[in-house]
Amino acid sequence: MLHRITTSVFKAVGTPEDIASDVAEVLVDNHLAGHDSHGVLRIAQYLQWIREGRIVPHARPEVLAETTSTALIRGHMGFGQSVALAATDLATTKAKENGAAAVSVVDLGHTGRLGAFTERAARRGVVMFMTVGRGGPPMTVPYGGAEPSLGTNPVAFSLPRGPHAPVTLDYATSAIANGKLMLARAKGEPVPEGAIVDREGAPTTDPEDYFAGGHLLPFGGHKGYALAVIADLLAGPLTGADRYSGAVMETGVFIFAVASDAFRPEPDYLHAMDSVTRRITDVPAAPGFDAVLLPGEPESQTRGVRTADGIPLPAQTLAELARIATGLGLPVDELGLSAPSAGAARATTL
Amino acid sequence: MLHRITTSVFKAVGTPEDIASDVAEVLVDNHLAGHDSHGVLRIAQYLQWIREGRIVPHARPEVLAETTSTALIRGHMGFGQSVALAATDLATTKAKENGAAAVSVVDLGHTGRLGAFTERAARRGVVMFMTVGRGGPPMTVPYGGAEPSLGTNPVAFSLPRGPHAPVTLDYATSAIANGKLMLARAKGEPVPEGAIVDREGAPTTDPEDYFAGGHLLPFGGHKGYALAVIADLLAGPLTGADRYSGAVMETGVFIFAVASDAFRPEPDYLHAMDSVTRRITDVPAAPGFDAVLLPGEPESQTRGVRTADGIPLPAQTLAELARIATGLGLPVDELGLSAPSAGAARATTL
Repeated sequence: MLHRITTSVFKAVGTPEDIASDVAEVLVDNHLAGHDSHGVLRIAQYLQWIREGRIVPHARPEVLAETTSTALIRGHMGFGQSVALAATDLATTKAKENGAAAVSVVDLGHTGRLGAFTERAARRGVVMFMTVGRGGPPMTVPYGGAEPSLGTNPVAFSLPRGPHAPVTLDYATSAIANGKLMLARAKGEPVPEGAIVDREGAPTTDPEDYFAGGHLLPFGGHKGYALAVIADLLAGPLTGADRYSGAVMETGVFIFAVASDAFRPEPDYLHAMDSVTRRITDVPAAPGFDAVLLPGEPESQTRGVRTADGIPLPAQTLAELARIATGLGLPVDELGLSAPSAGAARATTL
Repeated sequence: MLHRITTSVFKAVGTPEDIASDVAEVLVDNHLAGHDSHGVLRIAQYLQWIREGRIVPHARPEVLAETTSTALIRGHMGFGQSVALAATDLATTKAKENGAAAVSVVDLGHTGRLGAFTERAARRGVVMFMTVGRGGPPMTVPYGGAEPSLGTNPVAFSLPRGPHAPVTLDYATSAIANGKLMLARAKGEPVPEGAIVDREGAPTTDPEDYFAGGHLLPFGGHKGYALAVIADLLAGPLTGADRYSGAVMETGVFIFAVASDAFRPEPDYLHAMDSVTRRITDVPAAPGFDAVLLPGEPESQTRGVRTADGIPLPAQTLAELARIATGLGLPVDELGLSAPSAGAARATTL
């Protein structure tokens, strides 16, 4: 349902069916994983970017250079989701054929959550690492710095686990998400130590300091800072993204992929994954926790619930979708977007 | 000097000249980088492991399987330093020939500091990622757990920077080193939040709680935990290390390498590295800091000083080396290891 709405909206602004479907697939996948901030909430922004010429909806990725183990892909300002899916699939194919592959992607739009791509590769038997550098103005201060010079520089890593959900690391290298800062501010509560600095670059736990000109810190002190820098350098200087000056992002996407059966037969790999993941999680929980979860397990639990029950959306988001669809002359009722009554607060499941 | 002493000691216990020289090269490199805990202090332990049959000093690595972009190397219980150097060089060659490579290493001894290997690759124009999983008993609790199930699971990442020192991430994924815990205990000072738990798995900042049966935490909360798990899975299930039951370590080494000119000409890459690293560090320092440093820059500063002035060693370490050399019938004076007077506290530079 949400897939059909999203596809229809993007088709209505000149996006070919297959590309619109790619974008919809990634946005819906992000909802299924519980990351609603990377879902249909973004549609309005993407439409705005299309109007401004910052996303070219009919652009298709081009392979500029290729060897058996590498590829350089230019997105020609196309949707980041669609271009990154193509890059993911090319890296997956190369890894399955040759064992290992590195793929760089430049000149593409916003990709959103990287786990959507690395988990797709893992479901096809490929271990994948992916990173995006800084897009837009800097917001994270380097370790020891007083002013920002990094982005949120996300990284993702997925390993296949056969019939089970992949193990997935997928996060921004900054310490805290904007949404959590807004929540702490609303509640008048402090944020954890080591997450933000005030406008002078001094450590603080008061969210008000952040909104008064403060900045984000990398997670985990100098260790998270190092990871943020590596992400920035892989996605920028290594990919060559800076050569494509018309691009939406100053940065690119860097992918590394290796077949999970590159060094041993697949059944042996899966058996060892089962045994080691069990060893890691099979310890008593700490006070305040129910159990030890694998990275990516909270998302796969949410995916289970939402695949069965549907994706709950706040009335406000639905109203926004209906408004967008109406503006584009789409059949709102037929899409299942009957306008909620004014002021409705209940969530609807799509 | 330190290289000659180390080589002589290992040759005296049946190590071929080239392998002894490899081990010495890595141990001296660790001192040059300022990581004295991974230097000649380890010699006594390695000699013990040789006596116990846990390191086979004359063993040479064997390439068990190979494609243009991958290799699986078996160390046959050889010195981790020497086997990992061979793996680093094979991954470097493959990356330079084909763009990207993944190399797994199994059945090898203790490798020590991973940056010694990734920086070697970077100095030859190759971007390298390397990880080792758990060796020995678990000491780090998983996020949300009350008992340890992870090792210190180190990771390293180096990117070339032409004539400049590589940018290098190189750390354990646990929050704090054992040495720092001992120091805090001796001073009666608390350790930072989020570094250790007590024996019940509850957070604490009192180092005494750690020495009373407590455990390490991963750095950076659930984010560092995820990185520790990925390191464990890459080095274990992916490499196939668990198949080699006679091995010293239950884990292996996983390497991924990409040529820095895989996606653009080398001069463009270096120019962009210069520009982006400058952008990251060229911000005012925070209160309490002199400047923003790149990851690996503290080590390269130490390397500069020690390359010029020599490696300072405490008298105790020198006495230990002299004792070992004497025990092996080596010419102590000729090696420059004149026994320091009893109780001497001053450091000597070698």
